[in-house]
Amino acid sequence: MLRTAICDLFSIEHPIIQGGMMWVGTAELVSAVSNAGGLGIIGAGNSEPDWVRQQIRSTKQLTNKPFGINIIMLSPFIEEVTEVVLEEEVAVVAFGAGNPEIYIPRFKQAGIKVMSVVASVGSARRLERLGVDAVVAEGMESGGEVGETTTMVLVPQVVDSVQIPVVAAGGIADGRGLAAALALGAQGVQMGTRFICSDECIAHPRFKERIVKAHDRSTVVAGRTAGYAVRCLENRLTRQFLALEKAGATEEELDWFGRGRTYLGLIEGDLDEGLLLAGQSAGLIKGIKPVKVIIGEIIAEAEAIIRTIGERMSYG
Amino acid sequence: MLRTAICDLFSIEHPIIQGGMMWVGTAELVSAVSNAGGLGIIGAGNSEPDWVRQQIRSTKQLTNKPFGINIIMLSPFIEEVTEVVLEEEVAVVAFGAGNPEIYIPRFKQAGIKVMSVVASVGSARRLERLGVDAVVAEGMESGGEVGETTTMVLVPQVVDSVQIPVVAAGGIADGRGLAAALALGAQGVQMGTRFICSDECIAHPRFKERIVKAHDRSTVVAGRTAGYAVRCLENRLTRQFLALEKAGATEEELDWFGRGRTYLGLIEGDLDEGLLLAGQSAGLIKGIKPVKVIIGEIIAEAEAIIRTIGERMSYG
Repeated sequence: MLRTAICDLFSIEHPIIQGGMMWVGTAELVSAVSNAGGLGIIGAGNSEPDWVRQQIRSTKQLTNKPFGINIIMLSPFIEEVTEVVLEEEVAVVAFGAGNPEIYIPRFKQAGIKVMSVVASVGSARRLERLGVDAVVAEGMESGGEVGETTTMVLVPQVVDSVQIPVVAAGGIADGRGLAAALALGAQGVQMGTRFICSDECIAHPRFKERIVKAHDRSTVVAGRTAGYAVRCLENRLTRQFLALEKAGATEEELDWFGRGRTYLGLIEGDLDEGLLLAGQSAGLIKGIKPVKVIIGEIIAEAEAIIRTIGERMSYG
Repeated sequence: MLRTAICDLFSIEHPIIQGGMMWVGTAELVSAVSNAGGLGIIGAGNSEPDWVRQQIRSTKQLTNKPFGINIIMLSPFIEEVTEVVLEEEVAVVAFGAGNPEIYIPRFKQAGIKVMSVVASVGSARRLERLGVDAVVAEGMESGGEVGETTTMVLVPQVVDSVQIPVVAAGGIADGRGLAAALALGAQGVQMGTRFICSDECIAHPRFKERIVKAHDRSTVVAGRTAGYAVRCLENRLTRQFLALEKAGATEEELDWFGRGRTYLGLIEGDLDEGLLLAGQSAGLIKGIKPVKVIIGEIIAEAEAIIRTIGERMSYG
């Protein structure tokens, strides 16, 4: 069995974490991942505290295993959501966009494990000093907001720079990715796009099918000129958006253009006008399966790879 | 010992290939890599046939091991260089930019192994059909000309799409990268930036030192708006170039701006005005060492990683 420091830290069976995704990281998916031995994570995003509380309670009804919640510091409800998470005693808090400095001690004092997604060595070092229990080093191949450094080079540099466990994210969707992440020094993987293509995820079936059909060059990064960068599947919206960017549109124009597009894409399944957040790993995903099957296959594949490479080395 | 299909194909000891780099892929470096059990590759670039012949003969004086040569179809001397390579019976030809279709049968009929660098699944499939013996799947973290797909996702997708051996390139500079590449299904790795920082490479010491000082966010991609994309270390030149791009400079203006800059950076060591071609792996490189030490450490580290992960799995 592939057990790592991340399994011990979060009391989970497999070193596989589901990234806390806005709109689609709901109780259905979170409980399925945790029930399968990974760590499911609710995506709180900008949601109201009542919705967050309901998602936590629904998850608890569906699993008695540990799960987490992703909260972003830029949420207009960050204070109320923090109170809900403390009251409901969620096992793990994952920090998204923004500076979590003042929140870390509050969660830690309540016995909650905290981790943070980082896209650079500098952020990883800073968050370790602030007391997080683990960092997720996320390469620029991931879906949603991205930096510029890829998983292959970011993970080993973060591993060299911090003492806490490092989870690899970005471009991972199968057992090869898990085995590679372990080779790079990570203690586990976080996956988003792979879990969208599960039976349990509430994402629209048309969106899931579009991911399954994606190939190696199906994603683009939009918003670089506006000071943010978001990876998603190329579609009519991104072609229009990138044309606007190239023509020198202002940040305000681009902001208006993007508003409400994620829900439209992920939940309503509008493949032309919605923002179809997905990572480059989309090209590796060949089918929609139950979460338990996804996790089982990844673990079995990673174990087989490690065994095969080891045997080749011994007798080669 | 880590032996793979690439070792058998090229009759080399270790599954490590040195990328054929313009200006710095000369007899000194190529012979050192081949003597250390890897595959050294001369970078022919746009060089005149006499220079190419001299480099091949110098390499043969310095090693009796197999080595290769990288030729680009866009070279003004492509026909004459092809004749030189055939006459001198180089063991391996690696194709760079351009369509090598008409050259592949000529080299293969002469008993020369041929491989090609690819940045997409489509290119890999096409080149397999054209008869190459192997492909180097190069992620966008690599130095020099880049695509958009990262090593972590490109390598497994290419492996799934072709029957010939796949070599991983982009973001690899140590034993962790080699072990990860094998986990992703590659039969070996190709490295450029790591070999620039060797004692034997004729690159300017100031350029080598700049790579050693690089961190995880030291490279940029220039030229995306002009229809090409080149990864290099950020410096005064790239800041000026990217500002010109953002301001909407024409392709001709950008082309003039870039001319002669690579030699200035790599060989003359002008860190401000030269183009400092390097991959994101620069952040992983901590010292300038003899090629034999570099290769020895990478193999030992990869073997130790594979052993450790395997043991953790067995007894974990």
